[in-house]
Amino acid sequence: MKHNAFVVLSVLFLGLTVGCQHPSNTSDNTSSSQITNQTSQNALVNQELAQKALNSNLAYDLVESLTVEVGPRLAGTDKDLIAVEWAMNKLNSLGFDKVYKEAVQVPVWERGYANASITAPFAQPLVITALGGSVATPKGGIEAQIVRFDSLAALEAADPSLVKDKIVFIDHKTERHRNGKGYGMTVGGRSKGAVAAAKKGAVAIVIRSIGTDSDRMAHTGVMRYQQGVAKIPAAAMSNPDADLINAMLKRDSKITLALDMSSKNLGTATSYNVIAEVTGSSKPDEIVLIGAHLDSWDEGTGAIDDGAGVAIVTAAGKLIQDLPKKPARTVRVVLYAAEEIGLIGGKAYAKAHEQELAKHYIAAESDFGAGKIYQLDVKVNPQVFEQVLAEHHGMKTVGVEMGNNKAYGGPDVSMLPNYGVPVASLRQDGTDYFDYHHTPNDTLDKIVPSALAQNVAVYAQFAYTMAQSEIDLRPILAKDK
Amino acid sequence: MKHNAFVVLSVLFLGLTVGCQHPSNTSDNTSSSQITNQTSQNALVNQELAQKALNSNLAYDLVESLTVEVGPRLAGTDKDLIAVEWAMNKLNSLGFDKVYKEAVQVPVWERGYANASITAPFAQPLVITALGGSVATPKGGIEAQIVRFDSLAALEAADPSLVKDKIVFIDHKTERHRNGKGYGMTVGGRSKGAVAAAKKGAVAIVIRSIGTDSDRMAHTGVMRYQQGVAKIPAAAMSNPDADLINAMLKRDSKITLALDMSSKNLGTATSYNVIAEVTGSSKPDEIVLIGAHLDSWDEGTGAIDDGAGVAIVTAAGKLIQDLPKKPARTVRVVLYAAEEIGLIGGKAYAKAHEQELAKHYIAAESDFGAGKIYQLDVKVNPQVFEQVLAEHHGMKTVGVEMGNNKAYGGPDVSMLPNYGVPVASLRQDGTDYFDYHHTPNDTLDKIVPSALAQNVAVYAQFAYTMAQSEIDLRPILAKDK
Repeated sequence: MKHNAFVVLSVLFLGLTVGCQHPSNTSDNTSSSQITNQTSQNALVNQELAQKALNSNLAYDLVESLTVEVGPRLAGTDKDLIAVEWAMNKLNSLGFDKVYKEAVQVPVWERGYANASITAPFAQPLVITALGGSVATPKGGIEAQIVRFDSLAALEAADPSLVKDKIVFIDHKTERHRNGKGYGMTVGGRSKGAVAAAKKGAVAIVIRSIGTDSDRMAHTGVMRYQQGVAKIPAAAMSNPDADLINAMLKRDSKITLALDMSSKNLGTATSYNVIAEVTGSSKPDEIVLIGAHLDSWDEGTGAIDDGAGVAIVTAAGKLIQDLPKKPARTVRVVLYAAEEIGLIGGKAYAKAHEQELAKHYIAAESDFGAGKIYQLDVKVNPQVFEQVLAEHHGMKTVGVEMGNNKAYGGPDVSMLPNYGVPVASLRQDGTDYFDYHHTPNDTLDKIVPSALAQNVAVYAQFAYTMAQSEIDLRPILAKDK
Repeated sequence: MKHNAFVVLSVLFLGLTVGCQHPSNTSDNTSSSQITNQTSQNALVNQELAQKALNSNLAYDLVESLTVEVGPRLAGTDKDLIAVEWAMNKLNSLGFDKVYKEAVQVPVWERGYANASITAPFAQPLVITALGGSVATPKGGIEAQIVRFDSLAALEAADPSLVKDKIVFIDHKTERHRNGKGYGMTVGGRSKGAVAAAKKGAVAIVIRSIGTDSDRMAHTGVMRYQQGVAKIPAAAMSNPDADLINAMLKRDSKITLALDMSSKNLGTATSYNVIAEVTGSSKPDEIVLIGAHLDSWDEGTGAIDDGAGVAIVTAAGKLIQDLPKKPARTVRVVLYAAEEIGLIGGKAYAKAHEQELAKHYIAAESDFGAGKIYQLDVKVNPQVFEQVLAEHHGMKTVGVEMGNNKAYGGPDVSMLPNYGVPVASLRQDGTDYFDYHHTPNDTLDKIVPSALAQNVAVYAQFAYTMAQSEIDLRPILAKDK
């Protein structure tokens, strides 16, 4: 039943697509019936890809293998290189046409220990974690009064005399949303808080975790320093700990905190972007890029961030590799290095492949856990936007709605539109993503196998459809390069 | 509306109660109409107690105060004594007729650090916590192969040659049930596992946490040694870590673990049972005991275990203290010392009050979090069981069903039936209790204020009803003393 309904619907949608196709996008000697044949052929292949994806354990097996056999793989560590080896072996064993790696220089950071406690008015230990990139406290730690701000903006607006010699506490709660937009509203406090605090003379910063849970577990994540501004230690506390401090502040405005951290930056090391390709049958030099990042934070096993993405795009690529007839364009699976500490692999890829970017047809990264995909957004020439969505209407049968033309593409491909490359965002349900993100709780049990398989189905359909499409997606409305 | 319905129902139930009252339970010179007057008076008071409880923030304020101003309060530590001081001050400020404390000698244990990692076949750090009472590893830690068992029973049945020189891993998942019965099915592995493992020559034991969550957070809890059996280090790993080991065992039967722990036992210290009383108006020497325990584990702030219980019984006692006419019997609120490390306060109370136990009318402890009470169980003379329940039928209006005559009473009163003391269990919904129990996640945010207030309503009604009851609850079907 489902099977038949799918065919009928797909052909119907694809028929509509052809009906509204822009003339400039079809070569002069291609007749309408040829296109119809091709599009209904594509629909059949997409249907087959979805069925295979939904019936396959490959993605789950991959993320299990990565989290169990490698586990945490912080960029630039030994474990990161073990992950690269794992990826090379896995991609080779899956039989991709090409498998190779490209060296990337990545910063190396060591977490060390991070201890904090309230020393007055009520002595209590806190649960904190160092933010990625943070320096240590001076030996023996520091003790200072805290000063609380509702947000980064409030800190930035504050009189420096309130902040000087204090430990800044940014207390900005992250809201829960399906699309994860709460993160964007608070993450600035994590990435830019140390600089803003140091500019006003603070001795350290400890933020409320950028997370939607109420587990007594702090969320790490990268922070940045700025040349010419003092480097102060930066940490996050769990949400219950931030609540605790607020309850103390109701009782006494003067709270002192002791902070002792040993984290340090250790220079740079070599890591790798690991790449696999299904060579295109007729336009092998044109690239449909589907990516994820191979590195992870160090306190969980990197299951949802981003073992899931690695598994999704690898399994999707494998399904296309196994097709009896390869699509026109090359499908390139890129497992990026060192995303967590500043999109290092993504930037390196853009630089290394700059001459080839004109041949990148479209790119998308899976880096938002393993929740089901509910919407396809793209960033393409506005004149062909509707046509592009129409080509993907078959995705509705696996639960994907057609979205907007404002896609961001994912962190490691987010710079590609600056080079004119179209991108797509296959939007995942991230309702609970920020409960686990960047914590010890990022473990395999948080992944629902059926949702992971749906991601594979959608990525396979997307990559295949784009690798076959006759639409010219350029020029996009890009910002300056 | 609700108000009127309550009165009608209560009077109806109480009328039934009187109708079936055993003649021996009413004094000869008390007429039936006097009893009816008294019981409908009681019903009105119970209704008032419930309304006040449901409209009051007192219990929440108490548990907030305890968790914020004291926080973790492991028995025998400085924080434990701060908690005792907190309790004395709080009970005095609430205006109880009597407030006093009784010294208890308690064992002192220091957690120290506990680190573990898998060293082969796939090196990964684990998240563990020391079990309460555990010794340290030898200096520098130990490294050994693990041997997995489904349960304590499987370990006990195992051939010693399989266990010798290994680290035992008991992998028994705790099931989720409203009444918490899953805990009883697995906790033996925690309390008795070290002895069973050491008897067969194991060098350490690390169990799957006794918890229903999938947070990467281990659950502590007390363990015991046995004279004449080697003391081996004992720890728990989080559920995701246990899953990780199982995934490795699918790949390789030989897993080695490195374990390094510094926990130690530090002798004994003085702590206190803290007690408050509402003096009975006509039978002041007869005691209705409602208790909770003041100590907590050290990794959370002791909110659900057992700050909630402390708040519930204290707030219930306060409501009775504030009544214009005190009930016949004395209501005694007991905040026990050192429950977590072996019911030390409960045992000390029973010993210190042995001569008075014949005058303990009934006892109940609140020590199962802050979920709503759904059922009242008692342990009374079977001949008056139905009468006792009938006296409490008014509780149905706050959601409490009448249960059985097999109550256990709660940990610190569990020994009282051996002395002939009737007990009651006010059964709380513990569906999520073992998600947080004995972990850093035992924090204030896990308490729902409205559910806490319902507990206060039920405890106040229970204590008042029992302090007024004319029923002779003895003899109970007790085990040997």
